[in-house]
Amino acid sequence: MENLHASEALRVVLESVSILGVETVDLKRSLGRVLAESISSNRDLPPYDVSMMDGFAVRSGDVVSAPTQLVIIEDIKAGDMPTKIVRTGQCARIMTGAPIPQGADAVIPVEETHGLSAEIVQIDKTAKSGNYIRPQGDSMKNGEVVLQAGTEITPGVIGVLATVKVAVLSVYRRPRVAILSTGNELEGMSDPVDPNKIPNSNSYALMAQVQALGIEPVLLGIARDDPIELEEFLRRGLEYDVLLVSGGTSVGVHDYVRPTTARLGVQMKFWRVAIRPGHPLAFGITNTSSVFGLPGNPVSSMVCFEEFVLPALRRMMGNQRLYRRTVTARLTHPVRFNPGRTEFIRIYLTRDAAGYIATSTGSQSSGALLSMAKADGLLVVPSDSTGLAEGEQVTVQLLDGAAFQDAIEFRE
Amino acid sequence: MENLHASEALRVVLESVSILGVETVDLKRSLGRVLAESISSNRDLPPYDVSMMDGFAVRSGDVVSAPTQLVIIEDIKAGDMPTKIVRTGQCARIMTGAPIPQGADAVIPVEETHGLSAEIVQIDKTAKSGNYIRPQGDSMKNGEVVLQAGTEITPGVIGVLATVKVAVLSVYRRPRVAILSTGNELEGMSDPVDPNKIPNSNSYALMAQVQALGIEPVLLGIARDDPIELEEFLRRGLEYDVLLVSGGTSVGVHDYVRPTTARLGVQMKFWRVAIRPGHPLAFGITNTSSVFGLPGNPVSSMVCFEEFVLPALRRMMGNQRLYRRTVTARLTHPVRFNPGRTEFIRIYLTRDAAGYIATSTGSQSSGALLSMAKADGLLVVPSDSTGLAEGEQVTVQLLDGAAFQDAIEFRE
Repeated sequence: MENLHASEALRVVLESVSILGVETVDLKRSLGRVLAESISSNRDLPPYDVSMMDGFAVRSGDVVSAPTQLVIIEDIKAGDMPTKIVRTGQCARIMTGAPIPQGADAVIPVEETHGLSAEIVQIDKTAKSGNYIRPQGDSMKNGEVVLQAGTEITPGVIGVLATVKVAVLSVYRRPRVAILSTGNELEGMSDPVDPNKIPNSNSYALMAQVQALGIEPVLLGIARDDPIELEEFLRRGLEYDVLLVSGGTSVGVHDYVRPTTARLGVQMKFWRVAIRPGHPLAFGITNTSSVFGLPGNPVSSMVCFEEFVLPALRRMMGNQRLYRRTVTARLTHPVRFNPGRTEFIRIYLTRDAAGYIATSTGSQSSGALLSMAKADGLLVVPSDSTGLAEGEQVTVQLLDGAAFQDAIEFRE
Repeated sequence: MENLHASEALRVVLESVSILGVETVDLKRSLGRVLAESISSNRDLPPYDVSMMDGFAVRSGDVVSAPTQLVIIEDIKAGDMPTKIVRTGQCARIMTGAPIPQGADAVIPVEETHGLSAEIVQIDKTAKSGNYIRPQGDSMKNGEVVLQAGTEITPGVIGVLATVKVAVLSVYRRPRVAILSTGNELEGMSDPVDPNKIPNSNSYALMAQVQALGIEPVLLGIARDDPIELEEFLRRGLEYDVLLVSGGTSVGVHDYVRPTTARLGVQMKFWRVAIRPGHPLAFGITNTSSVFGLPGNPVSSMVCFEEFVLPALRRMMGNQRLYRRTVTARLTHPVRFNPGRTEFIRIYLTRDAAGYIATSTGSQSSGALLSMAKADGLLVVPSDSTGLAEGEQVTVQLLDGAAFQDAIEFRE
């Protein structure tokens, strides 16, 4: 039985999945989705030359020396249109975002002026033509494509969509995901505690990993080690776009998954991948569904999700960036490996003046789920590495809990 | 009118807000929340010494040389209890997670064995005592605190909570947030396009920034520049834990916000901060509410949210990590500044062998909302900087769209 290299397994997975389809959503429910259409502007923005400051719209020729006194001929608020032309020796009081009146070609911020009377203002600084004026169409021009299909909908993108007044939009649909745990040893959430059983944490950890991508999965429950029960569960699971099965894919004699998947028409692409943790990772497809056979071990299951399921789900949703953000960090301690497997070490991140520091969360036992709960990231060790030295620069994939940090950098 | 330093403004905001309260949620709805209680284990895990592999449980003394033949006395699945003692020359077939039988002290993985008959297996490798055995309580011990109050609930934490079978848990409640835009120049989402108006993008961008923190805000709409209408809107907004008002806080003569907030009993802490973009940022409190007066400009509004509102909301929710994750990046181009303000430059991130590269998104005009839509991060320029050189190492805060990247590092 061949152990695929991690990169080869990922290639197989990503070649097997594609964008699922398009649906429309309300702008208010679109955060995190991916645009399935290009969006054009329906207006020039700003619609005319506007002031970038609260202050006075002047003729720059009038303020080549300062201080200078000018006559205020008008008050222009944002939303008003000017009614007068600014002539030599004149100016208009203007608000941020308000249109520049004819004749004026510069704005003097209010902080650089003194009011002398209701009608006279003293300009304390000089200004060149164009000073604090944002020209018509500077932000976007009518008819111009402002967002390409494939754009991930961030808060900034939602701002742009609201600007061009797109209240309903086409996005790629999310995969429907089912989660199944297998094994007689598993104890369900509502079962009484039995010290001889193992709590079914995998379904919930996988559920949360899927939820973190904006997908609400369905938990199918626990299939016991019985071919008929398993087949029934798998049949239900294959009605979803993606089925995650944890446990049941090892080479043990009590493994009913293989013959059952074959009976159900699943074309298995691989059964084992050369990674640690996560070795018994399987992947197959039907015409309408993708099935991941994840290790029964909680940490292995989560790591396999991160490395193989997450990029597949993101590809289905139309995301162009499929992989976790990585940072470079300095390793605090040496690590030894047997080459031949790509390894994923759970680490904490801290920081000093020289950059990020990676420290192992301790036990890398694949049963140590607490280490996954505490981890900021996964250190990726290439399969040909025999070890990493203290102080070595390593690559760390940031996990969900690492999007925020406990210090900020503008305190100076 | 004093312009507060960014760090001082942030200090004032964070001193003014605190955790709001506690509520219970279902485990399935707890992702991203913060634990308001410490969680102890209700069991030893594993509950006994278990096998870490599918294979054979042996006496290590029997396999000091290999190959060796052993008699298989029993089959132990995960979830089974052993019924026999392994004596010299014997072994038990065992599955990953199954209990180690009495007498055995090591596990030989199935890959290192050959089945000779239904009852005889050949062990191809030697093993030391403890080989592939995970001892009882290795992951967690009954009664031991496994998660502290204040822990952010990530998928790994949900795995731990499911392990100790916490189906309902205490978390800090989320702030109720209201969003109000102000200004006669604003055009609502369902209004017809009027080239003389400005679309109300701020409410939607702020909505999405709040949603990205797991909070569903209420959009109050647009208050026109009328003291009575504004007072009514502000009064409604102050019924929420946090009120975000965009526009209306500048020093212009048409500013009704200040007297209105005073009438409503808001104690204003500051009105202006020395940042760019975002200068006219205001903050005040009542006994039950915090009010942020955000700039009317879309980019300024979003930047002020990132830098001041986001850490405040995270503190209210009990998060210990309040700030955006930062990375160090090499600047592709020189940037000049006037010192005196902390600046936030929108940038794209790319990567080469030496690490991250920061490139400005182009126009840093505070009206260029597209630059915010395209940005991966904000480059933070200290207030005493007069410029940054090409090639300089800079600090970049990662925005929501930067959690994922388009390449992965284990392809070797």
